Amino acid sequence: MSIAIRNAWIVTQNKNRDVLQGDILIEKDVIKSIGKVRSGADIEIEANEDVVVPGLINTHTHAAMALMKGIADDLPFSDFLSRVFSYDSRRTPKDIKSGAMLGCLEMIRSGTTTFVDLYYSEDIIADAVQSSGLRGVLCWAVLDPEHTTQTGLPLDNCRRFCESFKNVERIVPAVGLQGVYVCSTGTFTDARDYARENDLLLHFHLSETRKEVNDLKKREGSRPVEYLNGIGFLGSECLAAHAAWLTLNEVRVLGRCGTSISTCPVSNMKLATGGVAPIPEMLNAGVNVSIGTDGSTTNNSLDMFGEMKTLGLLQKSNRWDPSVLRAQQLLDFATIGGATAIGLESSIGSIEVGKKADITIMDGKAPNLNPLVRDNLVSNIIYSSSSQNVKTVICDGRITMRDWIVMTLEEESVVSSAVESARELMD
Amino acid sequence: MSIAIRNAWIVTQNKNRDVLQGDILIEKDVIKSIGKVRSGADIEIEANEDVVVPGLINTHTHAAMALMKGIADDLPFSDFLSRVFSYDSRRTPKDIKSGAMLGCLEMIRSGTTTFVDLYYSEDIIADAVQSSGLRGVLCWAVLDPEHTTQTGLPLDNCRRFCESFKNVERIVPAVGLQGVYVCSTGTFTDARDYARENDLLLHFHLSETRKEVNDLKKREGSRPVEYLNGIGFLGSECLAAHAAWLTLNEVRVLGRCGTSISTCPVSNMKLATGGVAPIPEMLNAGVNVSIGTDGSTTNNSLDMFGEMKTLGLLQKSNRWDPSVLRAQQLLDFATIGGATAIGLESSIGSIEVGKKADITIMDGKAPNLNPLVRDNLVSNIIYSSSSQNVKTVICDGRITMRDWIVMTLEEESVVSSAVESARELMD
Repeated sequence: MSIAIRNAWIVTQNKNRDVLQGDILIEKDVIKSIGKVRSGADIEIEANEDVVVPGLINTHTHAAMALMKGIADDLPFSDFLSRVFSYDSRRTPKDIKSGAMLGCLEMIRSGTTTFVDLYYSEDIIADAVQSSGLRGVLCWAVLDPEHTTQTGLPLDNCRRFCESFKNVERIVPAVGLQGVYVCSTGTFTDARDYARENDLLLHFHLSETRKEVNDLKKREGSRPVEYLNGIGFLGSECLAAHAAWLTLNEVRVLGRCGTSISTCPVSNMKLATGGVAPIPEMLNAGVNVSIGTDGSTTNNSLDMFGEMKTLGLLQKSNRWDPSVLRAQQLLDFATIGGATAIGLESSIGSIEVGKKADITIMDGKAPNLNPLVRDNLVSNIIYSSSSQNVKTVICDGRITMRDWIVMTLEEESVVSSAVESARELMD
Repeated sequence: MSIAIRNAWIVTQNKNRDVLQGDILIEKDVIKSIGKVRSGADIEIEANEDVVVPGLINTHTHAAMALMKGIADDLPFSDFLSRVFSYDSRRTPKDIKSGAMLGCLEMIRSGTTTFVDLYYSEDIIADAVQSSGLRGVLCWAVLDPEHTTQTGLPLDNCRRFCESFKNVERIVPAVGLQGVYVCSTGTFTDARDYARENDLLLHFHLSETRKEVNDLKKREGSRPVEYLNGIGFLGSECLAAHAAWLTLNEVRVLGRCGTSISTCPVSNMKLATGGVAPIPEMLNAGVNVSIGTDGSTTNNSLDMFGEMKTLGLLQKSNRWDPSVLRAQQLLDFATIGGATAIGLESSIGSIEVGKKADITIMDGKAPNLNPLVRDNLVSNIIYSSSSQNVKTVICDGRITMRDWIVMTLEEESVVSSAVESARELMD
């Protein structure tokens, strides 16, 4: 099966950040050529000056929580937590499935092709990933047994999941850790050992709130990054979400360890945690930066276009400097930065020959994106676009949405299952 | 001509903030009944649990700048200003028209029915308003003659415009003032006298940047609100945009004077002006709050859904308190608050019998808005929606967009004219 995309603006995100005008030829799951494609293809997409970007990569979410949007907004943090936990503990596997399906549908509609999920029941979420055609890096959440509602030991559950899904298409099983507030040193090091032996990603929450930092200082006498570094946990297989309450020293440690971060600006702002990830310092220290939406109780959206813009706004306003984080950098974080964060930079994150065909096509004629010329192309993608501009999405060489029609999921039935689950939970 | 909207979730924004399930009957330009409508209508819209909200009201923008998006991003403030002024001074009436048409198109697509514009050449912008079917409160910018590129005296131009357009459908001519940095006391008081004699709105920039405040303190010995109050300028016909750098005393003065504000969170964050409008204190002091997107060089979008969410995020994160500004309040600012700001609260801003039929219908089946139940309806509109959910828009009883197809403008030709103008300007 081959697909040709014709006459597009191609924002390659290659090393030179070239923006080209031309065609893309996809054969099976791989980008075969870029430029002028003379041969025909099985599927012809006339892009007619539409804008092609690499499929976006959301490096921190909890997709199944798409079911729970709007249940706990505008509340003090403690009320927020108890409301969310109360729902979460009552959910059945069916609810988790319907939430994950809805989350996948939202991601397709907003141009995401790969997401990193941190949750329990990743086997159920894997089902949704397989049906939807997305690429999922699914991190089974490990935490101390006394803090979990999981049946059995979390690390055993994680192992079983990683074993079962190690050769499944478009699924990258991985090890999740909830965070220092519910994980002992032994839990961290056991998870680390398992991940390193099996070459798996380690994904965890880090320094999201001041309380988390202060509590750990009381317990361990050090701040989270210092503590995790001290136990030999941090490395280049690590992807830390939030990373908002950090000292400059901690930033430098992350840089030295090769640990990537997933910044979640909307979630941090909405929960009013007060922390702003020190992105300029991270870039100086060589930390790879990517972007996550976090889950739908804290955002409440999985839209990476909104997230890129908000990240820029937050960083600029926080520093009183409009030149902090240029549009190009924001796009980098959501594409090649995301790919690097999950160790897939050689196969996704940019539009280059030999890479996987993960591609998002935006409507180049949309009023809100225009006037569109080469000079403002990246600016308009970041500051002026909306998920409504996402027209066609290809993941792993398969079309997940074409001309705003989702091809992989029955949209109506996914939405109505989610509504049914939500109504039962709210009763 | 009558229109019936059937089986909708109706977010009325009436005094009780009732959310109803039912029908709306529109006759000519007016809402005739709400509830169960038995009679047929000329146009039947089956809403099938779509979400109906009052048409959104954008209380501060410069619509014609839609042409200039993406030309001056991520730059230090002084470079930003010189880049924007250089473009602005080269624009022809044709460019202003094509920019205003594009801006109107963007507003329709994102559910706005009324906007407040501050600019010169409002007669040209009025043309775009008339073609698009929007409602425009058009404020001709007055400033000291030595600071303007306008031909003739700005206040004379403003008077001429207000006279010519005083009886034109859907156009409310008004008096604009650029701000304390280019308006002398005489300019302010002359404009005020003209506005009061003719019962016109006075709309102006206020305390957007620290520099503006500090420069005025040097020149006049007082801060902007104190100064404007001292010269008898402030009153209930005043609508101040930005209002970000204010003392608590200034907030109280605004409250006492009955002056409304238009907060522009995205613009302030993107330009990194550092000021955050003290909305909680404004509400305490009885100041009416509304929301503006500002123009497309500082946002770069006219999407009020994005603006409502960002306002909530900014205020919560700025106060480290997630309960600051609830979703319902954010929706209020963009509807009834906007109507009050322009003195039209008896005719627009809510869905009530006898009011003008200014209505936005959102796709209730959209994945990103679901699961949608009565309890999370307003939350999901604010935190989970996107302009892609805006399906049908009615302004003054006329359908401006139906099922995502714009009815009042030739979308392709508006976009291509804007591109043509932009290419000429960039050469």
